[in-house]
Amino acid sequence: MNHYQPRTDDMFFILQQVLQAPAQLQELPDFGPAGTAVDTELMRQVLDEAGKFVGDVVAPLNRAGDQVGARWQDGVVTMPPGFRDAYQAFWQGGWPALSAASEDGGQGLPAVLEAMLYEMLSAANHGWTMAPGLLHGAYECIRHHASDELKARYLSKIATGEWLATMCLTEPHAGSDLGLCRSRAVPQADGSYRLSGTKIFISGGEHDLTDNIIHLVLARLPDAPPGPKGLSLFLVPKFCPDGSRSAVVCERIEEKMGLHGSPTCVMRFDEASARIVGEPGKGLNAMFVMMNAARLHVGLQGIGLLEAAWQKADAYAQERRQMRAPGARRAADPSHGASVPADARAAASAGAPLTPSPIAEHPAIRRILDTQRAWIDAGRVVAYRTALELDIAHRHPDAKRRAAASRWCALVTPVLKAAWTDQAFQGASACLQVFGGHGYVSEWGIEQIVRDARVAMIYEGTNEIQAIDLLLRKTLPDGGAAMADLLGDLAADLAGRGGAAATVVAHLEAFSRFLRERLLPRVAAPDAPADLPYWLADDFLRAVGLLLQAWAWARISNAPGCDPYAAAGTAFWRWIWPESSMRLAMMEATLAA
Amino acid sequence: MNHYQPRTDDMFFILQQVLQAPAQLQELPDFGPAGTAVDTELMRQVLDEAGKFVGDVVAPLNRAGDQVGARWQDGVVTMPPGFRDAYQAFWQGGWPALSAASEDGGQGLPAVLEAMLYEMLSAANHGWTMAPGLLHGAYECIRHHASDELKARYLSKIATGEWLATMCLTEPHAGSDLGLCRSRAVPQADGSYRLSGTKIFISGGEHDLTDNIIHLVLARLPDAPPGPKGLSLFLVPKFCPDGSRSAVVCERIEEKMGLHGSPTCVMRFDEASARIVGEPGKGLNAMFVMMNAARLHVGLQGIGLLEAAWQKADAYAQERRQMRAPGARRAADPSHGASVPADARAAASAGAPLTPSPIAEHPAIRRILDTQRAWIDAGRVVAYRTALELDIAHRHPDAKRRAAASRWCALVTPVLKAAWTDQAFQGASACLQVFGGHGYVSEWGIEQIVRDARVAMIYEGTNEIQAIDLLLRKTLPDGGAAMADLLGDLAADLAGRGGAAATVVAHLEAFSRFLRERLLPRVAAPDAPADLPYWLADDFLRAVGLLLQAWAWARISNAPGCDPYAAAGTAFWRWIWPESSMRLAMMEATLAA
Repeated sequence: MNHYQPRTDDMFFILQQVLQAPAQLQELPDFGPAGTAVDTELMRQVLDEAGKFVGDVVAPLNRAGDQVGARWQDGVVTMPPGFRDAYQAFWQGGWPALSAASEDGGQGLPAVLEAMLYEMLSAANHGWTMAPGLLHGAYECIRHHASDELKARYLSKIATGEWLATMCLTEPHAGSDLGLCRSRAVPQADGSYRLSGTKIFISGGEHDLTDNIIHLVLARLPDAPPGPKGLSLFLVPKFCPDGSRSAVVCERIEEKMGLHGSPTCVMRFDEASARIVGEPGKGLNAMFVMMNAARLHVGLQGIGLLEAAWQKADAYAQERRQMRAPGARRAADPSHGASVPADARAAASAGAPLTPSPIAEHPAIRRILDTQRAWIDAGRVVAYRTALELDIAHRHPDAKRRAAASRWCALVTPVLKAAWTDQAFQGASACLQVFGGHGYVSEWGIEQIVRDARVAMIYEGTNEIQAIDLLLRKTLPDGGAAMADLLGDLAADLAGRGGAAATVVAHLEAFSRFLRERLLPRVAAPDAPADLPYWLADDFLRAVGLLLQAWAWARISNAPGCDPYAAAGTAFWRWIWPESSMRLAMMEATLAA
Repeated sequence: MNHYQPRTDDMFFILQQVLQAPAQLQELPDFGPAGTAVDTELMRQVLDEAGKFVGDVVAPLNRAGDQVGARWQDGVVTMPPGFRDAYQAFWQGGWPALSAASEDGGQGLPAVLEAMLYEMLSAANHGWTMAPGLLHGAYECIRHHASDELKARYLSKIATGEWLATMCLTEPHAGSDLGLCRSRAVPQADGSYRLSGTKIFISGGEHDLTDNIIHLVLARLPDAPPGPKGLSLFLVPKFCPDGSRSAVVCERIEEKMGLHGSPTCVMRFDEASARIVGEPGKGLNAMFVMMNAARLHVGLQGIGLLEAAWQKADAYAQERRQMRAPGARRAADPSHGASVPADARAAASAGAPLTPSPIAEHPAIRRILDTQRAWIDAGRVVAYRTALELDIAHRHPDAKRRAAASRWCALVTPVLKAAWTDQAFQGASACLQVFGGHGYVSEWGIEQIVRDARVAMIYEGTNEIQAIDLLLRKTLPDGGAAMADLLGDLAADLAGRGGAAATVVAHLEAFSRFLRERLLPRVAAPDAPADLPYWLADDFLRAVGLLLQAWAWARISNAPGCDPYAAAGTAFWRWIWPESSMRLAMMEATLAA
């Protein structure tokens, strides 16, 4: 079984030819000639080295991660074979610190490079990647909210990844509804707290990858009001500064559908010594810094897992021969991506007995493969651009540009998270189908991707929560203004471009009109049921996701060197885009009900 | 964790109120007053007893089936705890023989009762059910094709299920393309054969459930032509009539994504003593008798698995409370299926602090639950009717009615198999989503259903093969005549009914027109690419499946006592049916390309 190998050429094509990322980044003082000078050459070099590390060191451990898995005994978690060594090489190589500030021990590189690294890592080994996956969010959280004393003690350890971190949010009865959390933190005379409670679904709550683990924990002060406004954030290290062990223990790890390489821990805090991070009652705010970074990463996981599944299915479909593919003429058309050997074409025209074709030439299989490529390529455009906008939001000298970038991140992140993790699971399942019965058997590794990918639809906010976030929290409250601006920006970005650009602009305008003239007035009408937008949310998110993909395909098909992407572009318009009218019809029916 | 419990009231509603099955069956001489007299009371009684057996005996073993699984050692397969006892009770209770002829030791009951039994069994324990799942097909195969000598020896053993049977088709290099099979059978002087070869993916190839196992094996005679026409069918028992062990051995069992309760065997035949079944070179014909029965059963597995997933998700959604559901007013509307306790309504109107709602009241969750119910209820209408048509095809005195019934079975079986197994996987995954993170954890049992269900999209012909079967083999060759007749029959069946019936008739007519005026002429045009219909097949099958569902919902909503099904019916029209226009748009785009 071949494991995933990063295809950095494809990734770089999106970054450079489609998004012109190096040029954009150099407009930021930090990355211009006066700063780190993030030019094409540097980005390519970082990407190639990352690809080498991921392909050589991380990817080969994926199978053992699934089959051996993380093991728990008496509170101690042993990671699968090779995981610790790979992690030690990872942080010592400076990879977790890629986009951390240089004063904290980081490399000060753009977020988009970190995003691309995490796409590769997730494709290579989703389970292993869970460990460093929360690191950057924890770094930002401590950096922006912790006291100087805590920063001095923990910031560079987290920035460099020498120590790993967790987010301890969920409790047995409090999942999507964090306001129900019951963990309590009691203030002590010395300014510290004693924290007690049980947290579940804690990824990497315990492991042997690093010498210390830093837990960021939501809990309530004794006098806190009920609900989400009563939550504060606390820091509990596995080992205290004096070397003593904290009163926090991993009670067990969950048996799961997949992701066996990542221990999902039940963590019990028994009056553990804790420090507050940020202000009392502002725990959710501080946590959401982590959450937003995490949601972009989960979207990238979706893209990476889909790429890993596609690589397996594509390789199998080139090798496996079953029946003669119909229509050699059509199959030879490069717009369908199949390659028919010359001898097969000659045999076909001579009426000679035909050998079975590689299944890659059968229409049903081509459709599956090209459709996944369409999601992957467009997903990269959307995700890398979101990461670029993160850099712009933090570093651009122009406040208006920063605001537009923040708007992009706020609106696009939930769409990316939900639509691309849905597709990672559906598309990995479609790739499994390419293998026929062999896909259901563990040895080919494709079924592991399906099982692993399933969790990404749930964690960091279920995909249904993302849809509610997009429509109820980010679109309706300002009367659709931000969303209209985003749609307008996308249309403006396509002005003057060729190919499908004009069609996409028309679709963007039609959706703006639907939002302005149909959805918003109906939802705001005095007789509208209070739950009406909740019935619309899932379809709304899908529709926005399809528009983002259409925009991405208009950009790809206008980029120099886009010919190899033509089959995927055709697949987008034929088999993905038609969902858009369906979602509009569903929303219209709901509005009319 | 509660296990599945058959809800025979719901099943019987479809059988009796929607399909009027007892009345239809009594038109058949075998089941009329002069025959077995299959009336409402008898059918209800059989169903209730079956439900009791399935719920009490088979369902409780499902979890051990997954966790312990079938074990292989040195060619011997040990089934999970309790499986053998349950199987022995099953066959001794006469269940496998439900629809076998009484002269063969069967009960001579209609196929539709057997179908309903298998839906329940699949819901209860997919792995266990694989063992008897092929029995009826093997029975029909031996009954119609085997010599009298073989029948005397094996028919009643198979009819009663005292011995189990396998279908040995697939070889490592020959999956969907059985013509590539290489197993060979060499004739012997005594009229027997020596069969050699390796078969893979043999469900129940070895186990400890029964004292003997009868293998039906595709292989080639030495002088056979290459391809599918060179295949003959052979019978190889595990134990020969003289008590000696045959030269067939289970080399290993596969490690799989799910279905751990069913050993998927690699079977090696080393000059095993074999008997031919039917004529040389007609092996595929004889095998297809088994295959068609098997495909209906796989469709029923889809329905059963989806029901099992829905039961779990529904129960969880009633218990689990997270956040206050929006719009108590709407949630109280019974057309959305939610039940809001009176005290919550009172609290809402009084402005009192609100307790979190059961998640069943949240729109995103209701949509998931009601959509699955829509698939299940309509699936039962389509599947039970198909089983009824099987009985009619075999037993109706009128040749024209028999022909119409055969047409129904030929055209509807691949749709049922593909569309409802796709939905079993997608819908079980949606039900998993209802649990949030808990769904990904094994203890709730929902992730097992997702893993188990995935295989049904592959075996007995992948769903892509079903689509090719429907369009390429069953619709195009007669110029669409049979399909047009089926659509016409469905429309005629709705004539004079109320509710959505007239709308469905219009949809059926529109699709007929599309087939007649757009699809058929374009595919038959001299310049049409040879592979054009292959690009259409998947969408064509989906479109037919949606029309069958629409027909089913028109029937359900016209049945007495249909009120409890209203929420599912609304879900069908709002969230399932809109896919129909999308599929037509995809086909139009393909035809225009």
